[in-house]
Amino acid sequence: MYPKKELAQLVVSACNHYNVDTVVISPGSRNAPLTIGFSNHPNIKTYSIVDERCAAFFAMGIAQQTKKPVALVCTSGSALLNYHPAIAEAFYSKIPLLVISADRPKHLIDIGDGQTIRQEYVFNNHILCSANLSEDVERIGENIQLISGAIKKAIEKKGPVHINVPFDEPLYETVESIAEFDFPQFNYEEEIQNWQYDIAVNIWNASKKVMILVGENFPSEKINTCLEGYFNDEKVIVLTETISNIHHPNIINSIDKVITSFSEEDFEAFKPDLLITFGGMVVSKRIKQFLRKYSPKGHWHIDKLKDMNTFFCLTGHITLSTEEFLTELYKRVNKEKNKSSYQKEWLEAKLSRNNSHKQFLEKVEYSDLKACETILASLPDNCQLQVSNSSVIRYTQLFDLNPSLKVFCNRGTSGIDGSTSTAIGASIEVEEQTVFITGDVSFYYDSNALWNSYIPKSFRIIILNNSGGGIFKIIPGPKSTNALKYFETPHGLTAEHLAKTYNFEYCSARNINELNENLIDFYKESDKPKILEVFTPSDINDVILKEYFKNL
Amino acid sequence: MYPKKELAQLVVSACNHYNVDTVVISPGSRNAPLTIGFSNHPNIKTYSIVDERCAAFFAMGIAQQTKKPVALVCTSGSALLNYHPAIAEAFYSKIPLLVISADRPKHLIDIGDGQTIRQEYVFNNHILCSANLSEDVERIGENIQLISGAIKKAIEKKGPVHINVPFDEPLYETVESIAEFDFPQFNYEEEIQNWQYDIAVNIWNASKKVMILVGENFPSEKINTCLEGYFNDEKVIVLTETISNIHHPNIINSIDKVITSFSEEDFEAFKPDLLITFGGMVVSKRIKQFLRKYSPKGHWHIDKLKDMNTFFCLTGHITLSTEEFLTELYKRVNKEKNKSSYQKEWLEAKLSRNNSHKQFLEKVEYSDLKACETILASLPDNCQLQVSNSSVIRYTQLFDLNPSLKVFCNRGTSGIDGSTSTAIGASIEVEEQTVFITGDVSFYYDSNALWNSYIPKSFRIIILNNSGGGIFKIIPGPKSTNALKYFETPHGLTAEHLAKTYNFEYCSARNINELNENLIDFYKESDKPKILEVFTPSDINDVILKEYFKNL
Repeated sequence: MYPKKELAQLVVSACNHYNVDTVVISPGSRNAPLTIGFSNHPNIKTYSIVDERCAAFFAMGIAQQTKKPVALVCTSGSALLNYHPAIAEAFYSKIPLLVISADRPKHLIDIGDGQTIRQEYVFNNHILCSANLSEDVERIGENIQLISGAIKKAIEKKGPVHINVPFDEPLYETVESIAEFDFPQFNYEEEIQNWQYDIAVNIWNASKKVMILVGENFPSEKINTCLEGYFNDEKVIVLTETISNIHHPNIINSIDKVITSFSEEDFEAFKPDLLITFGGMVVSKRIKQFLRKYSPKGHWHIDKLKDMNTFFCLTGHITLSTEEFLTELYKRVNKEKNKSSYQKEWLEAKLSRNNSHKQFLEKVEYSDLKACETILASLPDNCQLQVSNSSVIRYTQLFDLNPSLKVFCNRGTSGIDGSTSTAIGASIEVEEQTVFITGDVSFYYDSNALWNSYIPKSFRIIILNNSGGGIFKIIPGPKSTNALKYFETPHGLTAEHLAKTYNFEYCSARNINELNENLIDFYKESDKPKILEVFTPSDINDVILKEYFKNL
Repeated sequence: MYPKKELAQLVVSACNHYNVDTVVISPGSRNAPLTIGFSNHPNIKTYSIVDERCAAFFAMGIAQQTKKPVALVCTSGSALLNYHPAIAEAFYSKIPLLVISADRPKHLIDIGDGQTIRQEYVFNNHILCSANLSEDVERIGENIQLISGAIKKAIEKKGPVHINVPFDEPLYETVESIAEFDFPQFNYEEEIQNWQYDIAVNIWNASKKVMILVGENFPSEKINTCLEGYFNDEKVIVLTETISNIHHPNIINSIDKVITSFSEEDFEAFKPDLLITFGGMVVSKRIKQFLRKYSPKGHWHIDKLKDMNTFFCLTGHITLSTEEFLTELYKRVNKEKNKSSYQKEWLEAKLSRNNSHKQFLEKVEYSDLKACETILASLPDNCQLQVSNSSVIRYTQLFDLNPSLKVFCNRGTSGIDGSTSTAIGASIEVEEQTVFITGDVSFYYDSNALWNSYIPKSFRIIILNNSGGGIFKIIPGPKSTNALKYFETPHGLTAEHLAKTYNFEYCSARNINELNENLIDFYKESDKPKILEVFTPSDINDVILKEYFKNL
C-alpha cells in the first residue's frame, strides 16, 4: 500500500534510496501521505511520538548513536515549531536530522485556513538547508534535486535540514504501485587540505608546553590509540571532560577539580605555549576563562567542518580528520626538542587534588556531591551513561568514571529541554543498558519523554532531586538578589506518580543508606524500566560544594 | 534593589512606562539582570514558569483576556525556541506579547560558548518586529527607539514582538538607584479609511441574500447591539461559531449541524449574494468548503489590520472597526429593497436539524457526543469556557451553549500544544470560574501546564478521554490506511496520577450515570483545582457521530 500522492512517494523513495531507515512520526492529517508511505515501507522503521518536542529529541538520540540521519515527520502548523529546540541542539552538536514537514499548498497560507503558518525557511538560523518542495507534477526533477541535496547536506555537513512538503486534499488515498524515480549518486567532496605539517612541526618543536583539550567526543578506540604518543610525552598534557570518552592515567580528566584553586601564578605557570583542541563543546567554564585570560601563543582546532575560536586565540584551523592529523603530526615532531616537566606538574597537581577529594568525600554529609559519588560508582560496566544539564553534568566531571562507560550529554545548546527524550532515543540503538542521570528540573521539563512506547525495560533513570534548580545556589549571584525563587524555582514535586502514569517502576532514597540499598538491584533485569529518585538536602548542597572546592 | 546593568534597567523601565505590568519569567542565569529588575519592581506582577513552552502559552492566556501585552523573559539558548509555538499562535490570533530574551554578547556567538544560539531574527516568519538591543552604552538612544517601537507595534498591530537583550558577565550585580530614561510618547496612527459607503449601500440594496459570518470574537455587548438590525432583517442570516460569542434566536449558531446534509441544490439555494465576515479564524471546515465552491458575488472582510481572503472571493477589505462599519452601514441601507425569505429558509433548516438533533441525542448511547451534551449542559452560568483543539471544539459547535458563557479556543494555528497553559493563564485574569474542556491527546501534550503554582482553586479541567486522537477516526481516511495507529496514537493513559503529581483533585466517569453524578458537585468551591476525566468508548464514538450527521 502506497500513498497516491506522487510527492509523498518521492519523499519516501528518496529516504529509502539514501539509506535513511528510521523515521519518527507525529500524528496529523496533512502528513497522512507521508505517514502511509513510511509506515508501510518494508525497509523503514517507524516510531510514533505525539509531542513533537520529544519526538525531535528522541530522533536526535537515535542519530547520536547511529551517526546516520533520522527523519522526523509532522503535520502542518505549530506542530513543526515544537521541533525547534532539538533542531538547534542538533545544529550545534552536529547530529544529522531530516525534518520533514507536511504543509498546506501555498494558496492556503495566510488566508485564514486552520493549522497553517509560514513554514518555508522557518528554522533559517539553525538549519543547514531548507528544501521547499512543490506539488506541481511538472517539477518532479526539481524536487528530486532539492531533496537529494538536503539529504546529502545532512550527511556531509552533519546537522539538521528541513524539507517542506505541501499537499492539497485529498490526503488519505492509496494506490497499489509506486512511481519510479532516478536519484543522483552522491559524490562526497573529500575536503583534503594540504595542512602544512612543516610549519606545524616547527611550532610544536619550539613549544615547551603543549595542551590538548578535548571537548565532547564520540567513544572511539582509534582516537585513544592515536593519542598514545602524546599521553607519554612529558611536555604534553591532555585535558578531557566526562563526555570526551578518553581514558589514560596521564591525563587530566577532571579539569575543574584541578584548576579551581589555581592562583594567578599557577595559571601563568600552567598556561600552554601551544593549545590543540578537537571534539565538540567544552563543558568547563573555568577552562574557558583560563585560556581566554592566559592566551597560548598558538591554538589549532581540528575539525573538518568548522573552526571554533572558543578562546579568541585561534591560529590554525585544521580541516583533516582528528586521527589523521594527530597520527601524522606525532610521527614528524622531534621528541627531544624542548622537553619539559609540563605534564609532570599537571599530574602532581592532579594527585594532590585527588587526595583532597578523597579525604573530603570520605567524611562529607549526604548531599548532591555525595550522592553523585555513590551513583557513579554503582554504574554497571559498559553501560551507556546519558547525563542531563546542567548541575548533573558538572558534578559528574568531578569524579573518575569507570572507563568502560560511554558518556553523552546534549551540549550543543546545553538546554534542559530534551535530555530525557534524547537518552531514550539513544537507548534503543545500543545493546548495552542505558542509565540516564538527571536533575529534577530537567526531568520535569521533559516529562513527556516518558510518553513513549519504545522504552527498553533495561532503561534506568536516576533523578537527583534537590527540589529546584540547584545550580542557581551553586553559582555565585542569585542568592543575593531578592529574587532567588525566580532562579531556583523550588517545587516539591516527586516523580512517583509520573512513574505510575507512564508505567515505570519507582523507588526513592533520602539518605546514603537508602541510596546504597536501592542501588543493589537497580540495574538488574526487570519487567519495566525504572526510576530512582534521590532526594538531596537543597539547603546544604551548595555549602558542601563550596566547601569541597575550598578544600581541594 | 535594581540590576546594575543599565540595559536591564532600560528594558524594565520601558515596560513600566508603557504599562506592561505582567511578566512571565523562566529561570536562567543570562536573564538574571531582567529577573532582578522585574521581580523587584513595585508596579509589575511577575510569574515564574519553568517550561518555556507552557510559559508562553500561559502569558498568551493572560493577554487574551486583558488585551494588553504580557512580557515573557527567558535565558539565552534553546530556552527561547520553546516559545515558538505560542508565538505563532499569538501571531495568528492577534494577541500582543513581548518576547524578551537575554542573549550572550555578539562575540560569544558561534565560537563554542554554552547555551548560545543565533537569537536575532529567530522568529522572523511569525513576529511583528525583532528589536536587537545593544549593550554598548553609547547606543542608549537607539535602544530606546528599538524597544519603544517594538512595544508600540505589539499594541498597535496586536501580536508578538521579539526584544533580544545581550548581557556580558557579571550578571547578578545590583545597585540602589536606577538611571532615568526618556521614552517617546506613542501616537497611534488612527488608520481612518474613508470607506465608500455609497458603493457598499448599492451592493447591499442589490443583494437578496446577505450572509454575515463571524469567526473567533471576544465577547462584546457592543457587537451584539450593532448586529440587532441585521438579526431582524429577513434577507440577512448571521452565521456564528461557538467562539464567536454572539447570541440571538435568529442566527445559525451550529453551522455544521445545518449544512452537513445539504445537497448540491441546497448549497446553490443557500449561497449568499453578499458575504460579510469579521473576527478571527473560522473553525468550520464545511463552511469554508461551501463558500469556496459556491462563491458569493461580493465578500467584504472587516478588519483594521489584515484582509483575509479565506474564500478566494474577497472584493472589499474594510479597515474600520466592526462596530462602526456595521452600525453606519445599516443606518444607510434601504430596508425595503430586495426583501427575501433568505433568513426564514435558514431558520427553517435550523429548526428541522434541531429536531433531529434532539431526537438523536435522546436515544443515543454513551459516547463523546453524549458526554459533550451532558457536560455543556452542566456548565455554570457566566463561567469562562476554554476549549482545546481539535475534536472537542468541533463537538462543542454542535450544541446550543448557555449564552452567559464566554468561550475561547486557540484557533490562530489550531494547535494542540498549549491549550491547557492558555486556559490557566486566562483563568487568573477573570473573576468568573474557568472551565477547560480538552481531549486526552491535547491534555497529555501540555501536561507541563499543571506545573504552575498560580492555578486558581476554582479552575476545572474536563478531559474527554477517548484514549487517542478520536478526530482521526471521525475524519474520513485514516481508518483505511494500514497505519491507523500512527494517526489515532492510542495510549491508555489516565490523568489520575498526574493529578496527584500536580495537586489536583481527581474524579472520573465511564458512563452517563457516573458522569452526571460527578458533575453535581464538580463546579462547587474546593480546596484544590479539579480534574474530571471522562472515559468514552473509542470503538463507537466515530460510528455514532457519523450516524448523527446522517440523521440530521
